[in-house]
Amino acid sequence: MNLLVVGSVALDTVKTPFGEAREVLGGSAAYFATAASYFTEVSLIAVVGEDFPEAHVGFLRRRGIDLAGLERRPGKTFRWRGEYSYALNEAKTLETQLNVFETFRPEIPEAYRSPDLLFLANIDPDLQASVLDQVKRPRLVACDTMNFWIEGKRAALTRLLKKVDALLINDGEARALGGDPNLVKVARTIQAGGPATLIIKRGEHGVLMFSHDRVFAMPALPMEQVLDPTGAGDCFAGGFMGYLASTGNLGAEVFRQAVVCGSVMASFAVEGFSLDRLRVLDYKEIEGRFKEFKRLTGFEDL
Amino acid sequence: MNLLVVGSVALDTVKTPFGEAREVLGGSAAYFATAASYFTEVSLIAVVGEDFPEAHVGFLRRRGIDLAGLERRPGKTFRWRGEYSYALNEAKTLETQLNVFETFRPEIPEAYRSPDLLFLANIDPDLQASVLDQVKRPRLVACDTMNFWIEGKRAALTRLLKKVDALLINDGEARALGGDPNLVKVARTIQAGGPATLIIKRGEHGVLMFSHDRVFAMPALPMEQVLDPTGAGDCFAGGFMGYLASTGNLGAEVFRQAVVCGSVMASFAVEGFSLDRLRVLDYKEIEGRFKEFKRLTGFEDL
Repeated sequence: MNLLVVGSVALDTVKTPFGEAREVLGGSAAYFATAASYFTEVSLIAVVGEDFPEAHVGFLRRRGIDLAGLERRPGKTFRWRGEYSYALNEAKTLETQLNVFETFRPEIPEAYRSPDLLFLANIDPDLQASVLDQVKRPRLVACDTMNFWIEGKRAALTRLLKKVDALLINDGEARALGGDPNLVKVARTIQAGGPATLIIKRGEHGVLMFSHDRVFAMPALPMEQVLDPTGAGDCFAGGFMGYLASTGNLGAEVFRQAVVCGSVMASFAVEGFSLDRLRVLDYKEIEGRFKEFKRLTGFEDL
Repeated sequence: MNLLVVGSVALDTVKTPFGEAREVLGGSAAYFATAASYFTEVSLIAVVGEDFPEAHVGFLRRRGIDLAGLERRPGKTFRWRGEYSYALNEAKTLETQLNVFETFRPEIPEAYRSPDLLFLANIDPDLQASVLDQVKRPRLVACDTMNFWIEGKRAALTRLLKKVDALLINDGEARALGGDPNLVKVARTIQAGGPATLIIKRGEHGVLMFSHDRVFAMPALPMEQVLDPTGAGDCFAGGFMGYLASTGNLGAEVFRQAVVCGSVMASFAVEGFSLDRLRVLDYKEIEGRFKEFKRLTGFEDL
């Protein structure tokens, strides 16, 4: 099945206790598409400025990502600058320059208007809805969002969620959206509002998926060396959707495997700054780490 | 194999957003022994005052717990009063009255000096060590501790840990003891200091076990109704040690099952105040919930 992602491509400057990276490839769509590209063909809709390095375009193209929807416009590329403390659990945003992203109004080229799977990365919910209006109803629509939209554009987000099959957010966002500290209650509230599947990303604590009338929990792989958590959530989403697209099966068991594939891609993403670890990753390593997740959580019956 | 626990038996007054319980049965050894009693025979060493209700003694006895080591002394029983906020993740201690517990110096009766498995619940590490000195080396010694001892009696704790096979603590305590935010590094540091097995309890995020050269992660069961988290950690330990004692096998696979049994008992404990849920629990429910943990985490190979 074909997969389409709409989101940001950015230049990030990131500092963690273990190093620093300046003006490196970032953005939700770049992370998502790169992770997904290990499983399936993926097309990307985003905008960059005149200053966006050709080398990054070359990297994404070599990953087999269809870039016909990557618009280059006059002005500068979206930039984000952030910093992590030792606990590595949350980025402190130091600066955001929207630049060309400020006027981004995704136009879906004719050739992309029938995606089987669509991922709406974290942008204004009105823009996410406008993408949905331009395409023939996909078999699966998933989206991300953030507290900024939950607090600032709740009505638009609520309208969007009615049309979405899967919502991927972190635990703080889930509690804010569902209005309760208890995640089981939160899941019921959110599912009643539209998305049949809710995936709650909990960073080092892993992932919870409420879907197909069941809950599935996958811990994160405990890692000795986490260089930079930036993009882990988008790489999770890319691995999750990419695996679903590769199988063409949206059944309960495949959703579970897809969560593990997402967890695998997130675990690689944090091993380097930007997409550095994914630049040198091969599929054999992905299979190997999938097995590590099996060993991490497997136990025998009583 | 026979199992011995040394710890506290207390009267707790607990307030959560979902209710309140006054002067109810509590204490680490009471929680531990009750949970373990579903799997094996367990003997308890603790002290209570003259005011300790006979009904509680009757309950523990009906659970088959050997109470010959439950000393009744002049004075009042240890009391703890605490409160939880909506997030239910950490108790705020409002009052602690040590009472007879203040002068508790555990004396191990002759009949108990050859335990196969020994659990040293959270008390002064010097007292934990004195228990160890009184018994023939058990096949497995596990202990708990808390930040109060990590900060205040680190040297005594370090000496104790050299003689201990398994340490069960929460993630904040693990980071304080291991001196690093990264739990993999923390585990290596702590294991180098003695305990071959480190079990890190993460509340609603479940448990990590570093043992047998591997890491095992078990998420907590997402629950809609958590009435009172008090004693969940001790019920985990009771289920863990109780299951090990029941099998007589200390191999890697059995340790994993024991972590699941611990998680099962903790999940029941939080469904009621004090030990109320365990008063009406039967073994069939334990088996059923063990299977729920399998469904919670199970996934198919790629």
